[in-house]
Amino acid sequence: MGKWVYTFGNKEAEGNASMKDLLGGKGANLAEMSNLGLSVPPGFTITTEVCDAYYKQNKKYPAELSEQVNLAIKKIEKITEASFGNRKNPLLVSVRSGAKASMPGMMDTVLNLGLNDETVQGLVAASGNDKFAWDSYRRFIQMYGDVVMGVSHYKFEKILEEMKLSKGVENDSDLDSTNLIDLVKKFKEIVKAETNLDFPQKPIEQLWGAIGSVFSSWMNQRAITYRKINNIPMSWGTAVNVQAMVFGNMGETSATGVAFTRNPSTGEKSFFGEFLINAQGEDVVAGIRTPQNLTKSDRIKEGSDQPSMEEVMPEVFSELVSIYHKLEKHYRDMQDIEFTVQKGKLWMLQTRNGKRTARAAIKIAVDMVSEGLINQDTALTRIDPSSLDQLLHPMIDPNISLEIIASGLPASPGAASGSIVFSADEAEIQKSSGKKVILVREETSPEDIHGMHAAEGILTSRGGMTSHAAVVARGMGTPCVSGVSSIRISYEEKCFFVGSKVYREGDFITLDGSKGRVIFGEAPMIKPELNEDFMKIINWSDQYRELKVRTNAETPADAKIACEFGAEGIGLCRTEHMFFDADRIIYVRQMILSEDEIGRKSALSKLLPFQKNDFKEIFKIMKGLPVTIRLLDPPLHEFLPNKDDEIDEIAKISGIKSSNLKRRSEALKEVNPMLGHRGCRLGISYPEIYEMQARAIFEAAIEVINETGERVYPEVMIPLVATKDEFNLLKQKIDNVADQIKKENPISLDYYVGTMIELPRAALCADEIAINADFFSFGTNDLTQTALGISRDDSSSFLDDYLNNEIFSIDPFISIDQNGVGKLVKIGHDLGRETNNNLKIGICGEHGGDPESINFFHEVGLDYVSASPYRVPVARLAAAQAAIKSKKN
Amino acid sequence: MGKWVYTFGNKEAEGNASMKDLLGGKGANLAEMSNLGLSVPPGFTITTEVCDAYYKQNKKYPAELSEQVNLAIKKIEKITEASFGNRKNPLLVSVRSGAKASMPGMMDTVLNLGLNDETVQGLVAASGNDKFAWDSYRRFIQMYGDVVMGVSHYKFEKILEEMKLSKGVENDSDLDSTNLIDLVKKFKEIVKAETNLDFPQKPIEQLWGAIGSVFSSWMNQRAITYRKINNIPMSWGTAVNVQAMVFGNMGETSATGVAFTRNPSTGEKSFFGEFLINAQGEDVVAGIRTPQNLTKSDRIKEGSDQPSMEEVMPEVFSELVSIYHKLEKHYRDMQDIEFTVQKGKLWMLQTRNGKRTARAAIKIAVDMVSEGLINQDTALTRIDPSSLDQLLHPMIDPNISLEIIASGLPASPGAASGSIVFSADEAEIQKSSGKKVILVREETSPEDIHGMHAAEGILTSRGGMTSHAAVVARGMGTPCVSGVSSIRISYEEKCFFVGSKVYREGDFITLDGSKGRVIFGEAPMIKPELNEDFMKIINWSDQYRELKVRTNAETPADAKIACEFGAEGIGLCRTEHMFFDADRIIYVRQMILSEDEIGRKSALSKLLPFQKNDFKEIFKIMKGLPVTIRLLDPPLHEFLPNKDDEIDEIAKISGIKSSNLKRRSEALKEVNPMLGHRGCRLGISYPEIYEMQARAIFEAAIEVINETGERVYPEVMIPLVATKDEFNLLKQKIDNVADQIKKENPISLDYYVGTMIELPRAALCADEIAINADFFSFGTNDLTQTALGISRDDSSSFLDDYLNNEIFSIDPFISIDQNGVGKLVKIGHDLGRETNNNLKIGICGEHGGDPESINFFHEVGLDYVSASPYRVPVARLAAAQAAIKSKKN
Repeated sequence: MGKWVYTFGNKEAEGNASMKDLLGGKGANLAEMSNLGLSVPPGFTITTEVCDAYYKQNKKYPAELSEQVNLAIKKIEKITEASFGNRKNPLLVSVRSGAKASMPGMMDTVLNLGLNDETVQGLVAASGNDKFAWDSYRRFIQMYGDVVMGVSHYKFEKILEEMKLSKGVENDSDLDSTNLIDLVKKFKEIVKAETNLDFPQKPIEQLWGAIGSVFSSWMNQRAITYRKINNIPMSWGTAVNVQAMVFGNMGETSATGVAFTRNPSTGEKSFFGEFLINAQGEDVVAGIRTPQNLTKSDRIKEGSDQPSMEEVMPEVFSELVSIYHKLEKHYRDMQDIEFTVQKGKLWMLQTRNGKRTARAAIKIAVDMVSEGLINQDTALTRIDPSSLDQLLHPMIDPNISLEIIASGLPASPGAASGSIVFSADEAEIQKSSGKKVILVREETSPEDIHGMHAAEGILTSRGGMTSHAAVVARGMGTPCVSGVSSIRISYEEKCFFVGSKVYREGDFITLDGSKGRVIFGEAPMIKPELNEDFMKIINWSDQYRELKVRTNAETPADAKIACEFGAEGIGLCRTEHMFFDADRIIYVRQMILSEDEIGRKSALSKLLPFQKNDFKEIFKIMKGLPVTIRLLDPPLHEFLPNKDDEIDEIAKISGIKSSNLKRRSEALKEVNPMLGHRGCRLGISYPEIYEMQARAIFEAAIEVINETGERVYPEVMIPLVATKDEFNLLKQKIDNVADQIKKENPISLDYYVGTMIELPRAALCADEIAINADFFSFGTNDLTQTALGISRDDSSSFLDDYLNNEIFSIDPFISIDQNGVGKLVKIGHDLGRETNNNLKIGICGEHGGDPESINFFHEVGLDYVSASPYRVPVARLAAAQAAIKSKKN
Repeated sequence: MGKWVYTFGNKEAEGNASMKDLLGGKGANLAEMSNLGLSVPPGFTITTEVCDAYYKQNKKYPAELSEQVNLAIKKIEKITEASFGNRKNPLLVSVRSGAKASMPGMMDTVLNLGLNDETVQGLVAASGNDKFAWDSYRRFIQMYGDVVMGVSHYKFEKILEEMKLSKGVENDSDLDSTNLIDLVKKFKEIVKAETNLDFPQKPIEQLWGAIGSVFSSWMNQRAITYRKINNIPMSWGTAVNVQAMVFGNMGETSATGVAFTRNPSTGEKSFFGEFLINAQGEDVVAGIRTPQNLTKSDRIKEGSDQPSMEEVMPEVFSELVSIYHKLEKHYRDMQDIEFTVQKGKLWMLQTRNGKRTARAAIKIAVDMVSEGLINQDTALTRIDPSSLDQLLHPMIDPNISLEIIASGLPASPGAASGSIVFSADEAEIQKSSGKKVILVREETSPEDIHGMHAAEGILTSRGGMTSHAAVVARGMGTPCVSGVSSIRISYEEKCFFVGSKVYREGDFITLDGSKGRVIFGEAPMIKPELNEDFMKIINWSDQYRELKVRTNAETPADAKIACEFGAEGIGLCRTEHMFFDADRIIYVRQMILSEDEIGRKSALSKLLPFQKNDFKEIFKIMKGLPVTIRLLDPPLHEFLPNKDDEIDEIAKISGIKSSNLKRRSEALKEVNPMLGHRGCRLGISYPEIYEMQARAIFEAAIEVINETGERVYPEVMIPLVATKDEFNLLKQKIDNVADQIKKENPISLDYYVGTMIELPRAALCADEIAINADFFSFGTNDLTQTALGISRDDSSSFLDDYLNNEIFSIDPFISIDQNGVGKLVKIGHDLGRETNNNLKIGICGEHGGDPESINFFHEVGLDYVSASPYRVPVARLAAAQAAIKSKKN
């Protein structure tokens, strides 16, 4: 026979805090508090297993449940000396949901259960307050009628409004007991009329109704949506907590309140909270009356004219203080507690780990380590790595009200203001005249890079979290809101429309890249501060993590930021962005449009010095740390102009007819550029391009060694390899360049040649490729695109449908699809190591900055992750958490 | 110690015919003929392993080789009673290459080796013909000087020409022995002048020079190119055959010839060949003198005035006849033989299996089975399945000279003539007025389908063997030449240019889809004939094969053809092609451009009857055979018009503004449509589309059952599934439709729901997907695109570079990449069966018609392949060969 019910109360309990899976968070903590000897209203928890069984057995309960519930009620009755249906001393209970994870307000609650036409009299007697008692009964019928019997809340409200109207009063509380008795009657009538059922009078019947309703509410739309957003599995189920009622509204010696054991916003170590005298819990939440401070010091600080609990109920307050010390010491974490004082007696109704801001999380974790409450590794696991992002970027002052124009995806965090521009060129021009601009585009392309660099923020009307704009913006640390589908851009009129409103070039807007908001005007900002505690946490991480953390950076500015954030090398330096500078693009285009190798080589020779200088700068900044440079990757047509005058300019330089250039440019267009003539395929077709790049890298390395005396470790990375033969052929060409340069320069040159693993075939044949490779770097962006067959540029049209249908629990470009794409990473890793023990293996896709994905990469056994500069601290912490987690398992 | 040298001659040999890997084809067969007791000039073979060792050891020979060669020469000397350098009776040898596969003319040969200033006198004595002897020496110096010593052939020719000029003669053979002695002197001088070396006089030195030169020629450019074209691995290496010389040019009782034991063109059982009296082998090949017939009957048939060998050398002829019977009986295959008669004695120089046409291959195989020479299974393995294609399509008469305009890829076999049109609409119009047209497009898209159907042939200037035009044309059995990059089309002027020539709408051209030729005018055709032998072979196949063979067909016409060719069901019926008919496309577009579900449903309800009728027709043709119907797959924008008047028409029907329609159409465009909103993603976003299609399928099935009384087995296939959840969700919707229809119709309905496996993730997670699936069908086209990250529409820009660099041995869209994509097929198959024993698994990509791929699919253990109608016989034979092969292993 299964045990389905766990009792608590009277300073003992059958459960404890470790049983959250079974009892839910609330039930487990009620049991734990009982065990700790705190005053908890007695009750019992029906386990989450019942919820599971209930849904598996077509909404039927396990056979033994009824008997176990009856025994548990007996136990409450014994402790409270009240009993179900007793006219003198009726037992009243609350029935509440309680899942493993907190889902506030998502599921149903029933209070005051046990009241009926007879027991209401008992409550009158016990409370000495007939208005209170009839109001409780009225509320119970309303709540139960709505939640359990399905009578619309609105019907009760209507009767209540009519009653107030007919009595000429304004507030519910202005109704007297006669009115309330009348309301009870009317409420019962409407229940009968709507459901054709009498309102149940038997408490036990009421109880089963409420239990069923809580279990059912697990599958209501609100709860389903909340679980989806918060990644809570349906299978967890909810528990049901049935607990004797206590009342904070039994007069001036009664009260109710909520408190945090430390400040959840700043992390400060000070007791913090609010309470209301003669009130119920919902009154604190509802905000009708202004709650009072708990402590005198808070009252003084806030200049409140209402006395604090410390002053008005000093004994109960000091009991509460000793309890919170006890709880925090016991749970070794900041607690969020709920309590009720009934006629001077303190009852604890809930304790749980309190939610907190990133800033508070860091301070609390660091403080608790110095207080000896927790270890460093526990401290590290207390902080959500993703939340660190908040601390690294300017934020819009949360205390200011804003005119929000439109909303989109929070594509790159931080906030920025500027005047609207609609082209990359315009952005650059305005920037150079000292203006701050926001670049607004339908979507961006590599040709817009210079404008993206110039802009304070980027706004796109299309594209998702991993669109070009989003990826590049995150890399640059520039705030970006993408996929704002409600705006319609007219490039010709230089404006965008939101509905009937028009925003023109030059108008000021503010982007909130952390929340995806577009705000009218220049919103006031709060500057980020990387305090000592932040650095402590990040530095502690380094003692635990096994994964190295590198960065994706291609500009000196990015490389510098990443180094400040502790990057241990560059994992991905894209070379194509270097091609877009105004003084180079002309040669790039000449190279692409040349009709033969001689023409290409002539153009490449002009690009060589530029590339060499780029690499030199980066090598110098990275001071001997490894730098992985990816050879040219994008399809060539991305570099080509569309405008006639630009084509004519190339014609002039190259001596090729404009019409021929146009034809050649047209011929380069592709149906599916993602799967086209790009990556190492360019190196196979035009070896001279890769040879120039290799030469630029090696010459830069030698010059930096000569100039600084420090070693340089370039890692030359060949993109989009599918077969060993591609890799071997191109590696040979790179080695040949190196050999030649070594002959020209009597200096020892260390370099490595490796490849991106970003195609399914490469992962599946990694054993063959690894034989001659020094390193692998998983390009999980493209690997996701190819393994799933999803173009990230086009995914926005169906991604929502996939999330809504729970086909994806999260956008696979944000967190790696461990089951599918992850399998390829694992296969690629294992096969690679099989034939090459010394293979260095990392990952340089966007997933390198995602904590869940980092945990996965740690488990697979990669050597490093590479993340965008602002994600480096996130990755360091996430890597530490992964290591701590796997040590525990 | 390795054995590097195998001797033969004197009716015995160290090797035999089974040792082709080691001795090469020529060496193994020379050994075999010796063993058979035939007269073979004695000699020895240096093995292919020496070639391999030679290249691996930096062009050095194995240590023991020299001694083994010396012993082998001794053996020849003993048999011939001649010896190297002997002035009286000098041993002369030929040195020839001989790889495992025949590579005619690709590598070097040296004849008459052993001649020097002294031994030439011996040859004078032995032949009694000093002109012959000196001419032989002259030829030897020329050949050896060119091949071994690197003196340009042209230098010798020049001296020869000068000599003829100074002597006033026209032909080489007009020079007398004095002239030839003089030539020898001059030839030696030019060798000295060019190389600074004396022409080697020692035969053994000459021999090593020739051996080295043959091994080196394995890596010459000609040989490398030939191997690439014919898929011969470099690692096979060549053997070297050293053999005593025999001379067919020692007078009127000497001769040389080549023969086939059966007619290689028709397969007829009659001895067939040519010979020349007093000539050397190269004279037959060179074509200076017209060769004579071997048999009297051939001479009479051809009306030749030269006597046949049967008449002029009756004894030798009858010896030859008995030898060819012996050889054919021994080899059990048609032989291609070379022989020389030296002073009345017949010497066999070569035998090998003769090359033959597809028609001959079939006749010979069938005949040999009835002659009891071979079994049916051997007969089946004798025919190249790909070659059957030739027999199924009309061919251009090979005896007519043609004006070839341009060349492209042989995208869909067969030939067709018609007048040029440049649009699908025009094709349809002209066809309906009874004209034959060739559709000429840059490339085709699904919107052109009606025109492709109307056209006799299709010509595209872009796209490869697997472009849309190529795939669809093969499916239809319509000849197609694709990727004809030398033509430039002007749609406006309705003409295309080839260089300066112009071809206009209405001009007649002929396409040769088997050879990729575009021909001016209407070329005369030869009709295909499916004779009895062909049917015998294909029907025999069915007794051996384990793979079922289905067809890819979506029109009744295709389905009928496929049934005639023996298709056992439809493996892929695409439903989108049905959407393009003129009377439907308007509703399709209305559906796509609707702003909500109601609009879509209204349009879909108009499409339903069309789809249902399509399916009914196909079900009736397939008479109870399984029919796999793929639900809508391509991205919706493929169906949309670009022209304003077409958009206006939809606006009128749907009541949506034209401008809105245009915006919506614009919004549907994608960056990478291959990876976009298509396949089951459409079904997830717009379930009503798949529900309509399911309803059309099930209602069609029920009506056909009612009308014909025969069962129908529709298999509903969901495309582009990546995750189990997509499949389960859509299967549920399809089942719901079926349940509803079953309620409406009291008839039992069998149907199956399965999925394409065409994304890497689907293959990797096939175990999860298989649980609820009835069948898998590997879509190896898309699986190749995604696993390799190659868009087949864009691959033409680099595919040649990949083939030239030997990265691909063959276009992976033509023959499956077994190592990579094949691994996914195997994983998908194995995982699928792991969780679902009853899973039916097939393949419906283009590879289903490729013999190599079919062999692979057999090995993996699939249940069936599905090929385009004209490939069904090919697939049946290939499947049989696969089964026979795996039984042998």
